[in-house]
Amino acid sequence: MPTISHRGLDMPASPIRRLVPYAEKAVEKGVKVIHLNIGQPDIKTPKVAMDAIRNIDLEIVEYSHSAGNESYRKKVAEKFRGLGMKVDYQDFLITTGGSEAIIFSFLSCLNPGEEIIIPEPFYANYNGFAAMAGINVVPIPSSIEDGFALPPIEEFEKAMTPNTKGILICNPNNPTGYLYSMDEMLQLRDLVAKHDLYLFSDEVYREFCYDGEKHISAMHLEGIENNVVMVDSVSKRYSECGVRIGALVTKNKDVINTALKYGQARLSPPGLGQIVGEASLETPPEYFDNVYNEYIARRNFIVDGLNKIPGVYSPMPKGAFYTVAKLPVDDADLFCQWILSDFEYKNHTVMMAPASGFYCTPGKGKDEVRIAYVLKVEDLALALEVLEKALKAYPGRTL
Amino acid sequence: MPTISHRGLDMPASPIRRLVPYAEKAVEKGVKVIHLNIGQPDIKTPKVAMDAIRNIDLEIVEYSHSAGNESYRKKVAEKFRGLGMKVDYQDFLITTGGSEAIIFSFLSCLNPGEEIIIPEPFYANYNGFAAMAGINVVPIPSSIEDGFALPPIEEFEKAMTPNTKGILICNPNNPTGYLYSMDEMLQLRDLVAKHDLYLFSDEVYREFCYDGEKHISAMHLEGIENNVVMVDSVSKRYSECGVRIGALVTKNKDVINTALKYGQARLSPPGLGQIVGEASLETPPEYFDNVYNEYIARRNFIVDGLNKIPGVYSPMPKGAFYTVAKLPVDDADLFCQWILSDFEYKNHTVMMAPASGFYCTPGKGKDEVRIAYVLKVEDLALALEVLEKALKAYPGRTL
Ligand SMILES: Cc1ncc(COP(=O)(O)O)c(C=O)c1O
Ligand SMILES: Cc1ncc(COP(=O)(O)O)c(C=O)c1O
Repeated sequence: MPTISHRGLDMPASPIRRLVPYAEKAVEKGVKVIHLNIGQPDIKTPKVAMDAIRNIDLEIVEYSHSAGNESYRKKVAEKFRGLGMKVDYQDFLITTGGSEAIIFSFLSCLNPGEEIIIPEPFYANYNGFAAMAGINVVPIPSSIEDGFALPPIEEFEKAMTPNTKGILICNPNNPTGYLYSMDEMLQLRDLVAKHDLYLFSDEVYREFCYDGEKHISAMHLEGIENNVVMVDSVSKRYSECGVRIGALVTKNKDVINTALKYGQARLSPPGLGQIVGEASLETPPEYFDNVYNEYIARRNFIVDGLNKIPGVYSPMPKGAFYTVAKLPVDDADLFCQWILSDFEYKNHTVMMAPASGFYCTPGKGKDEVRIAYVLKVEDLALALEVLEKALKAYPGRTL
Repeated sequence: MPTISHRGLDMPASPIRRLVPYAEKAVEKGVKVIHLNIGQPDIKTPKVAMDAIRNIDLEIVEYSHSAGNESYRKKVAEKFRGLGMKVDYQDFLITTGGSEAIIFSFLSCLNPGEEIIIPEPFYANYNGFAAMAGINVVPIPSSIEDGFALPPIEEFEKAMTPNTKGILICNPNNPTGYLYSMDEMLQLRDLVAKHDLYLFSDEVYREFCYDGEKHISAMHLEGIENNVVMVDSVSKRYSECGVRIGALVTKNKDVINTALKYGQARLSPPGLGQIVGEASLETPPEYFDNVYNEYIARRNFIVDGLNKIPGVYSPMPKGAFYTVAKLPVDDADLFCQWILSDFEYKNHTVMMAPASGFYCTPGKGKDEVRIAYVLKVEDLALALEVLEKALKAYPGRTL
């Protein structure tokens, strides 16, 4: 039997995935699992998007242009210009989800063995894409005490080596919900300009900003137009994760041309998804108002509730639909397993994502979990109750 | 401005793409271009598939399982068992087109710097996927004189090095239309078993076999179950290239588990495409009869017609919907450009794919073109007329 690639062996195992069998066993026992672990919103896909697909009048679903349908790219570019970005449709490569935009960015900009710096905790799949591209992730810590603000610029500079090729930020952040301020974005701009690095900016949660805060895109920063590579996606914006449409956006011609070569090799992004994505641009503003109101209520409810539980602390995130909370436990991986396997309250238990999976540095985030508030307030209320009781009962509690 | 990756620079430029501006100029001049260069069939997508999408009753298009919906995998596995393959649904990873199955195969099985042997001419995008994965393609020539039969096994053995990890075949073949015989498949099996290599088998044209010939899948070969990685796709089978659904199929647990890790990193294959793919399994047999009759008529017409043009030779392919023809010209790249830029007949010209793009060895296939017969017989007839006249007028003709 031939051996497999070390790349595959290097792919990190996700701590959430390790929990799946425990969740399944809970269900088998008749216990209901409240999923605080997922990034799949329960919000409906806009009607205008679903109607587009129901009214499709194609006879053949053909390959599209490898960069995506021109009509779609033109409309997205227009939308983004409306958000203050100086972009043209030729700066867009439509991808199979934001995911493909990430891997194409890595493959286009970095040679194997080169490095990117990412503030941790970060979206765990960056590790997977890095393993696929043979590049190295260099984490620098942000901390719950600072509300997961951007680490001091000196920390980035300390982490740099001759192999450093770029910095990756996710804004608003998964898992922390942190939204970078103008001041932080300007610090990043200066850093990137000084060292001529790439700034990879994952902005798939752009629409989810709260408390009147404005989203500052990396595409808004002047003077580093050739350094910025933005990752976009319709998945969260329109709650249409399954259509698999995203985009790589950059003013850097070499990068977009190189990414297009990868795009041509895989022929085209999903055709039906592009129809949905294009139609989604007509989503009425009320849709987003409702989504905003729903999420703000959920966020306030869950974060306030968490902070009322003795020993639990969560900052108040300004974006996305996640928060990282500190729990009074010895080991959040063990606690998340235990609550599924050994605990129930009112016939319910909760599944959370141990934060260890979002940190690169071993041992970091050991007492933290990521909580996604993509469920209705009633469900969140019950989840909080279960969590509070569980923390009292857990043998490894530290309080 | 930061530099881009050498991987991107290594991506081969396609000779077809180089022709696109010439085709565009022809159109601007009012000349109609008959496209013999494309792999996008003009056959309609089955009605049952389009209906499934029109009748979709989802409210949220969610991420699917990273390996694809279980219901879909179960049905495809059943279909393949009906074709004599001993496969279970757990041997399937549903991918974003066959394209993603190819890149996942390379990433799962080969380390950077390792090699695969491919008989040339071959599907040009293998080069792109190899560049992305940092692996090397070692070509061994098949020739038009032998009708593009499998090269002698000694040629494979001569090409092997300590870095050789596998052999890739495409069956039936793009660009040659060659269909491997049972005898050839058994030779490959013995070779693969002897050296414990991977056999990557791209079978996306499986349904397109003519003259009563049976398709022998690599999954039919006994004794090398852990060596075979099959690439499948709905693109050509159901003429639904744009839905982007394919599959990586293997009995090798290490490979499928590794590929699933990449699948998890990119979250899920297209959701709407999976609905179409699943519904397509209900396509009535008449659909395929019609497709078969249409293609056999087109093949016979174009290949006979080609062979009637002085100095032109094409073998009679047994599969897919392409043929490689030898032309009496100095350089097919130049001829394909000239016919677009400087020639017209009855206000038409033709676009063909220079075969040079399908060969790795420089200079090979210099007088060959790939012709796709995905057009109606009337269009093929006119294309043949144009080609015959052009070959008489071309300054670089060798006859
Ligand atoms: C931070 C971040 N980036 C990118 C993605 C990729 O999403 P998609 O490929 O669905 O666009 C996700 C999905 O959860 C995410 O959380
Ligand atoms: C030989 C071969 N393999 C794989 C593919 C990939 O097709 P898809 O990604 O649409 O399944 C093609 C498409 O033309 C092909 O010709």
